[in-house]
Amino acid sequence: MKTLGYYNGKYDEIENMYIPMNDRGCYFGDGIYEVAVCKNGKIFALEDHLDRCFSSAEKLRINIPQTRNELTSILKEMVTKVEGSELILYWQYTRGTAKRSHVFPSDMKANLWIYINPASGAGILRDIRLMTCEDIRFTRCDIKTINLIPAVMYSTEAAENDCTEAVLHRNGRVTECAHSNIHILKDGVLITPPADNFILPGVTRKRLIDLCRRLGVPVSEQPFTLNDMMNADEVLVTSTTKFVVAAKEIDNKPVGGKDRALYEKLKGALYAEYEEETK
Amino acid sequence: MKTLGYYNGKYDEIENMYIPMNDRGCYFGDGIYEVAVCKNGKIFALEDHLDRCFSSAEKLRINIPQTRNELTSILKEMVTKVEGSELILYWQYTRGTAKRSHVFPSDMKANLWIYINPASGAGILRDIRLMTCEDIRFTRCDIKTINLIPAVMYSTEAAENDCTEAVLHRNGRVTECAHSNIHILKDGVLITPPADNFILPGVTRKRLIDLCRRLGVPVSEQPFTLNDMMNADEVLVTSTTKFVVAAKEIDNKPVGGKDRALYEKLKGALYAEYEEETK
Repeated sequence: MKTLGYYNGKYDEIENMYIPMNDRGCYFGDGIYEVAVCKNGKIFALEDHLDRCFSSAEKLRINIPQTRNELTSILKEMVTKVEGSELILYWQYTRGTAKRSHVFPSDMKANLWIYINPASGAGILRDIRLMTCEDIRFTRCDIKTINLIPAVMYSTEAAENDCTEAVLHRNGRVTECAHSNIHILKDGVLITPPADNFILPGVTRKRLIDLCRRLGVPVSEQPFTLNDMMNADEVLVTSTTKFVVAAKEIDNKPVGGKDRALYEKLKGALYAEYEEETK
Repeated sequence: MKTLGYYNGKYDEIENMYIPMNDRGCYFGDGIYEVAVCKNGKIFALEDHLDRCFSSAEKLRINIPQTRNELTSILKEMVTKVEGSELILYWQYTRGTAKRSHVFPSDMKANLWIYINPASGAGILRDIRLMTCEDIRFTRCDIKTINLIPAVMYSTEAAENDCTEAVLHRNGRVTECAHSNIHILKDGVLITPPADNFILPGVTRKRLIDLCRRLGVPVSEQPFTLNDMMNADEVLVTSTTKFVVAAKEIDNKPVGGKDRALYEKLKGALYAEYEEETK
């Protein structure tokens, strides 16, 4: 298959897949999701994605009917069905299927959806442009929900301004990007916003922090401001599909470019982990 | 038919309806919606719902392919297909169908979904219980989106506490309920939060304000606090399906009950409009 769409055990090419109109995902966006990159049939950082998947579901009281091992088996099996060595694996759980009612019964069983597509240039970005936007999202950004209208609007506005991402801030305090985490390098230290309710605890963010610790690069999990960012040695954006990439411009002003050596070192180490774990 | 599910021209009983897995509603909740009550084949307050539908879509740059007249015709026709004199008509537009990508092309055409169900006791609520919750939602609550996880969580928590609704507040300033507007009566004045970005401009809210003006009841569109609410003469909750109902308890403390005459007058006038416009 060229692509794969899966819904509660049935699967086909995505464009042939139809789902019940009464799935709560359809009218409430009532679900959580994960995106992972795959190579050679291996799902990179799968354990971290599974951790977050079950954590997001628990925070929203979504009952996942599969055990962790059962879900792992389904994901791995579905990855084998799709052609190509590099794939993007997306899955989501919606709360269940029922007549529309805000109130949900506590025993409702979640629906599993999987989308698999060929990877289109994951990780090939170089020195990106960003724009800043006020962060107007809800304040439980630690939960990876499919309520993504703000991310859609920010991302589209960024693209229309020839930017790869929008940097969000609350009253000048930088939180994250529309669908990525953001960090700065300053005087040899990786400074990254703390994993509180204002940001998603990114799987690549965690990797980057772990890498820094292993490489002896000090890490400071603390808030930083727009001003700190504009004056940083490097501004780094991380996500599952972007890995880590430096910004060269924010709001049309040059940024970073003052610690290329450390950036390249971290980037190289991250790609090395990816290659090692998916060979 | 007992119920009706409609998707871009096809329709059937809701449980027989399936929609494409690649609809952006499925994985981004990328859409807007309306709910209206119907009686005797008439859709109550339809023009106000249409105004808001097109306004919500415009704010999110969702391109509705139907004209207002075309949409009106479809809605009216679908209402005739369902048995029963009192129905709940729900419709939504999702941005379009495509492979998942946050960035949307500006010429994408929206998908129209309609759900029609028998009305189950609309307007029969009497003197409800409420609980208060901090309002953590995004700050564009003026747009009626299907990104409804916060509304789902608040509503369920309220129901589990034997309450009809959750009253949301931002640092003590009351905004609205999880899926209703809220108002107070004090010294013969209707005080209602202004229709800013923190609340949905409710169709029933607008009716109530118009009614007050016609009946000579002063209206003040101004923010009020939790404390103002607890000390109000009456606390009124409005929504399309609840019409207007007074609260008797909030957080297990008695509220209101001090201006029953005015409440009953407003409630009676609202029902009279409903009966008149749907006869």
